[in-house]
Amino acid sequence: MRRKIALDMDEVIVNIYGRFRSIYEQEFGVSVQEKDLEGKKFYTLPGAENYRSLLFEPGFFADLPIFDGALEVVEWLNNHFDLFIVTAAQEFPNSLIDKYSWLQSHLPFLSWKQYVFCGDKSIINADYMIDDHVFNLEKFKGVGLLFTAPHNINENGYIRLNNWTEVKLFFEQEWRESSQKEL
Amino acid sequence: MRRKIALDMDEVIVNIYGRFRSIYEQEFGVSVQEKDLEGKKFYTLPGAENYRSLLFEPGFFADLPIFDGALEVVEWLNNHFDLFIVTAAQEFPNSLIDKYSWLQSHLPFLSWKQYVFCGDKSIINADYMIDDHVFNLEKFKGVGLLFTAPHNINENGYIRLNNWTEVKLFFEQEWRESSQKEL
Repeated sequence: MRRKIALDMDEVIVNIYGRFRSIYEQEFGVSVQEKDLEGKKFYTLPGAENYRSLLFEPGFFADLPIFDGALEVVEWLNNHFDLFIVTAAQEFPNSLIDKYSWLQSHLPFLSWKQYVFCGDKSIINADYMIDDHVFNLEKFKGVGLLFTAPHNINENGYIRLNNWTEVKLFFEQEWRESSQKEL
Repeated sequence: MRRKIALDMDEVIVNIYGRFRSIYEQEFGVSVQEKDLEGKKFYTLPGAENYRSLLFEPGFFADLPIFDGALEVVEWLNNHFDLFIVTAAQEFPNSLIDKYSWLQSHLPFLSWKQYVFCGDKSIINADYMIDDHVFNLEKFKGVGLLFTAPHNINENGYIRLNNWTEVKLFFEQEWRESSQKEL
C-alpha cells in the first residue's frame, strides 16, 4: 500500500517570499537578502508592514513562481506515493479559485481529487506532512518534515528539508525502505 | 479532549435535491416525490439527465436551502465537539467560493478554520464522519454515520441518521458517554 504525503503549497511549492522580494525591490529599489529575513516574517521589514494584505487580493495566488526543482520532484512523489496538496487557503477566500487554477496549470499531472483546501491541518490524516510551519506539524500524528523557509530558520525538533533536492533524497530512501518491507 | 466530527455539506446540511425538485417542477409542471428518487440519482429521472451540469454553474452552491433542524443542531455540535465541515468541492471549481459564502452567511458561528474543501475524503482524520455517500465512509477509520438521502436508501452496514433530530439524539448520547469517561 502506498504511503500518504500531505504536501503544503505556500513557501514549499510556490515562492511567496520571492514574489514579495520582487515587489519590495520595485517599490524601494533595495534588494532583500535571505539573511535579512532569517527568523522573521516578511511583514517585519520596514515598508513591508502591509504586504500581508496582498494575500487577500484576487489573482495574487494564481500567478506565483514555483520553487526550483519542485515540478520534477512533485511529479516523482506523485508516481511513488499517495500525494495530497494540503494548503491553508480558507483564510484568504480569493485564494481558493486562484490556487485551484495554479495547480491545474502548473501541476497538470495531479487530479483535483488530490487538492485539500483547509484552515486547520489537525484534520489531516497522512503518513508524512511537509510544511514550513511548525504549528501545522505539531498537531500531526505522522512524520512531520519542516521545509526550510527564512521565517523558520531557528526552529528545531523536526527533520528539516532545505530544498527540493533534499525532499527527493528523503523520499527515495523512504520509498526504498517501504518497497523492501513489502518483499 | 473534545471528539472530532467531519460533517458533510451537500445533501446533509444543504438540500440540493430539494433545489433540483423545485427546478424540475417549474420546468415540467410535475412534482417529484421522495419515492420517485429512492435508490436513484436525480439525473436518472426523465428530463433531468443534464441537471448535474447545474453543479458547475457559478452561484448554484451559494443559494441552496438548508435542511430542517440543521442550523440549530450544527450550532449545538459546534459547542460540544471539535467540528469540521468537510465537503467535496473540488470537482466543481465554482463551488469553492460559493460554499465559502454560504457557510459564512448561514453558519456564522463557525470559523473559516473549520472549513475543509477536498476531493477525496480518505485524507480526513476525525472520530466521526457524517456523510450521505458510502464511498466516503468506506475509507474512514472512525465511526461512519450515513445521513439518509433518497439515493442511499438501500445501503446497509452503517449507523443511519435519518434527519437532524436523529443527529442530535445520537451525539447527545456520545457526548454524555465521553463526559462520563472523563469524570
